[in-house]
Amino acid sequence: MDKTLQLSGEHFILVLNSGSSSLKFAVYHQTTGHRQWSGVIKGIGKPIGTMDLTDSYGDSIALKKEHYRNIEDASVAIIRWLRENKKHCLISAIGYRLVQGGAVHRRPEIITEKLLEDLKELIFLAPNHLPDELSLINAFMLEFSYLLHVACFDTNFHRDMPDCNKYYPLPAKYAEQGLMRYGFHGLSYEYIMQKLDKQHAFIDQKKIVIAHLGNGSSMAAVSLGKGFDTTMGVSPIGGLVMATRCGDLDPGAVLFMLKQNDITPEELDVELSHESGLKAISGTGDMEEILNSLCDDKKAEAALTLYCHQAKKFIASLAASLGGIDMLIFTGGIGENSPEVRERICAEMDFMGLKIDRCLNLRSEKVISSQSSKVCIRVMKTSEESMIAMHTRNFLLPDNENKLASALHAKTEKV
Amino acid sequence: MDKTLQLSGEHFILVLNSGSSSLKFAVYHQTTGHRQWSGVIKGIGKPIGTMDLTDSYGDSIALKKEHYRNIEDASVAIIRWLRENKKHCLISAIGYRLVQGGAVHRRPEIITEKLLEDLKELIFLAPNHLPDELSLINAFMLEFSYLLHVACFDTNFHRDMPDCNKYYPLPAKYAEQGLMRYGFHGLSYEYIMQKLDKQHAFIDQKKIVIAHLGNGSSMAAVSLGKGFDTTMGVSPIGGLVMATRCGDLDPGAVLFMLKQNDITPEELDVELSHESGLKAISGTGDMEEILNSLCDDKKAEAALTLYCHQAKKFIASLAASLGGIDMLIFTGGIGENSPEVRERICAEMDFMGLKIDRCLNLRSEKVISSQSSKVCIRVMKTSEESMIAMHTRNFLLPDNENKLASALHAKTEKV
Repeated sequence: MDKTLQLSGEHFILVLNSGSSSLKFAVYHQTTGHRQWSGVIKGIGKPIGTMDLTDSYGDSIALKKEHYRNIEDASVAIIRWLRENKKHCLISAIGYRLVQGGAVHRRPEIITEKLLEDLKELIFLAPNHLPDELSLINAFMLEFSYLLHVACFDTNFHRDMPDCNKYYPLPAKYAEQGLMRYGFHGLSYEYIMQKLDKQHAFIDQKKIVIAHLGNGSSMAAVSLGKGFDTTMGVSPIGGLVMATRCGDLDPGAVLFMLKQNDITPEELDVELSHESGLKAISGTGDMEEILNSLCDDKKAEAALTLYCHQAKKFIASLAASLGGIDMLIFTGGIGENSPEVRERICAEMDFMGLKIDRCLNLRSEKVISSQSSKVCIRVMKTSEESMIAMHTRNFLLPDNENKLASALHAKTEKV
Repeated sequence: MDKTLQLSGEHFILVLNSGSSSLKFAVYHQTTGHRQWSGVIKGIGKPIGTMDLTDSYGDSIALKKEHYRNIEDASVAIIRWLRENKKHCLISAIGYRLVQGGAVHRRPEIITEKLLEDLKELIFLAPNHLPDELSLINAFMLEFSYLLHVACFDTNFHRDMPDCNKYYPLPAKYAEQGLMRYGFHGLSYEYIMQKLDKQHAFIDQKKIVIAHLGNGSSMAAVSLGKGFDTTMGVSPIGGLVMATRCGDLDPGAVLFMLKQNDITPEELDVELSHESGLKAISGTGDMEEILNSLCDDKKAEAALTLYCHQAKKFIASLAASLGGIDMLIFTGGIGENSPEVRERICAEMDFMGLKIDRCLNLRSEKVISSQSSKVCIRVMKTSEESMIAMHTRNFLLPDNENKLASALHAKTEKV
């Protein structure tokens, strides 16, 4: 690959972000960092899936309905679209979101054979996510072997948490097996902190709780610009109650379920990941649906009540972890778009200096705290894909040339 | 039994409170409610156990070293001592602490054959505690069949928690099996609230967090005089980290332990109950030992740091559950006796109006908050045994005569 081509002119970075039943992708300008277009494949594994592409103005440029059996089918569809539309020519690197890299792989890394081997060994840490993410990488590395491929880990942001937040009070053998509190949604938290850094002087001196509320929900406590505490642990099931995940439990509850029912830990994992949370209460994990049926559905009200009640409790808990906070940030699909959820979460929280302004909140303004609130409450749009693009771009910058050259060299030798 | 004898004169109530490896007992004056003497058998199941008895002034009246294989041995030892010292003659009723009575049995109840049958069916809810508690009841009912026996449940205080604190966001079938958040240490919380009620006017209008910190630790959020929220759930393993119990976990962590190791849920239960918590970090679950080795033992410091850090987080979390608090009460062995623990927990909590006064705290005064603290911080001595005696006594009061008569009638028919 021509390195000078990579480092100059109109070049782009492709970002791939695979979720549990969807695959997001986007292309960013390498120099300006602007998103050129983006897409999402939804309904992977369902009878009919969709691939939806929009340009940088948010206007639709393509919408396809197809059956995507699995992540491989979805990968093939994206590759085909890139080739058919000649969008692949100027791509210089591909960045991927990876849920887990264990204790060793946390910072963004150029993907090498060695890394892929390591990640295969770590599938037990994220059996529901890593296999698909590795399939995705394999498909794109096979097709675009001449490009630079970068892995961005969702656990990176939390890597410097103090021991009391990092380890479980369990017999030592378990930590040796890799059982520790990794935390997730790290790319979202990193993005928010980067954005804040541009807007506020001395943001590193602020104590912040970021509430990433979406299908999957978690919160991070930030001190000195770094992750200090978080709600999720070794898996994305823990912490806050979520759309279909139960959140933290009394371990006795997990043992109860296993003892009282003839099920394996693997089967229980599926139940706790896909059949619990808001779905178990209201029949749906979709917050929009829940919000729309509040008036005449007591179960929807119960689900929303629990969600907001737990969010309150975790915000206070993380604030105590930090010794008080200066700022609370709502982000993620629900955090960005639901004034109702934000208002309920912030209600009766003035005991810790948190006061929401109803009007500002209803208009989803950037700052939604009232003037008398000691804690600044903000709404911010997150973008994991942008963060992946930034990390990936860093490997193409001149001061990374040596690293890059040796990685590409190793790759060429393999190919 | 002569009812008039029960209701008048110098009569006493025997209280039996069985823990995991100890059995506490005490005798209270039926009319005045004063403790006459008390005892504790420690080291049940260990090579050498002790039975220690003290009078109402706290002076030792007997100390025996014996081998108690199990709870039956310990029961026999107490019964023998009662008979040898003619202490049994004036006892009119016996009250027992019971960890669980499921969703139906929460309020104190006269023990009947029917209740015992029900409780046998509920052993699955508390397999580590209920069997011993039932053995204890059987031993004393056999010996003193003519007395009134009363069961006091540790879950009673939490019976009116709102749904969002009472149920887990899990598929409905589990709640039908009895999986819900019961909460424990209820007799301690009831006792504290009774005591407060005598000291403060309008205590029912206060929002209170009671931190019962001992070998087992939990906290309760109290509103309108009732349990509103608590840290423990279906089992005594959850909530705060404890001496040898791990506290709440990401359910993914429990599944990880089971999947990565060839162990059954029953074996894991033992590990999470007896080999985790502070013991897993510092080698001992004994807080006194931990406090004594802080200076030269980093592991002891790590254990104490985690304990206090989690306590902070749970206090804030329960405060958010209540929408702020007026009062924080420390009780239980550690809560009553360790200024170091209380100080560390209250440090950097002024963001929620909590300020401790170092001097008052060092002297373990009744009120240890500073004058500028919005929240009143108190240290209170708890007594589960006193609470059991009070509940038991209530069944002997005139307005309970009918209830009592029919219960005794049913009993006589059986005997």
